[in-house]
Amino acid sequence: MQMALQLARQAAQADEVPVGAVIVAPDGQVIGQAENAMRRQRNPAAHAEMLALQMAAAAYGDERLRDCDLYVTLEPCTMCAAAASLYRVRRIYFGAYDPKGGGIDHGARVFTQPTCHHRPETYGGILEAECQKLLVDFFHARR
Amino acid sequence: MQMALQLARQAAQADEVPVGAVIVAPDGQVIGQAENAMRRQRNPAAHAEMLALQMAAAAYGDERLRDCDLYVTLEPCTMCAAAASLYRVRRIYFGAYDPKGGGIDHGARVFTQPTCHHRPETYGGILEAECQKLLVDFFHARR
Repeated sequence: MQMALQLARQAAQADEVPVGAVIVAPDGQVIGQAENAMRRQRNPAAHAEMLALQMAAAAYGDERLRDCDLYVTLEPCTMCAAAASLYRVRRIYFGAYDPKGGGIDHGARVFTQPTCHHRPETYGGILEAECQKLLVDFFHARR
Repeated sequence: MQMALQLARQAAQADEVPVGAVIVAPDGQVIGQAENAMRRQRNPAAHAEMLALQMAAAAYGDERLRDCDLYVTLEPCTMCAAAASLYRVRRIYFGAYDPKGGGIDHGARVFTQPTCHHRPETYGGILEAECQKLLVDFFHARR
């Protein structure tokens, strides 16, 4: 999660909403890492998680990330949570909870739905204070 | 939707689950079109809708597809429905309903959630019989 936080800090420096994501293979190797890039890629779906998942699948040699874990500084949104399920991620560790846009413990609660066919284990609130402070500071500075 | 159906047929010929998607700009021009490519791209998130949205945003010169409409042969899944919201699509016309994996009228019902901040209008069942037959024939042939 420290690595994800570092990526999130980089995002903030590039004027992106500070969210970072890391994918770790079963042997402990980092096989995907990305920060938000919506503004720079002019793509509202270029969330850190989507980019990290794509990178990891390419590196892993298997598009299914079975036994791989996702670390992300913010609760994934509905799109990213559903994508993590499609990629068959094993566990999701996230930092700050996102009552306004989260898709795991809020709103669509993607993994509780009968239409969800792979349910990663999820652990929220990891380094929550640091992850949240980064977001709060970012939005405060922009006001 | 006829164009989306044609894309879906191409997908089937490439041994992909036959789903096709088209994005139409306010002036009636097609600015994005894609078929499922999960198998060929070895990417479980390479759904027709995701690829068409990305293509359209690049062509439209604005990453927000305001006033643009998405035509797709199958009810979008949770990920694709949430992505269409992020891209600010105006209307979604879809063919077959998908009780097992759909995210609009089933499961997560993405656009009804308080965490959804842009709700496209949706119209399901357009050329439903043709869209569904393509899927049924595809899965029947594989068994």
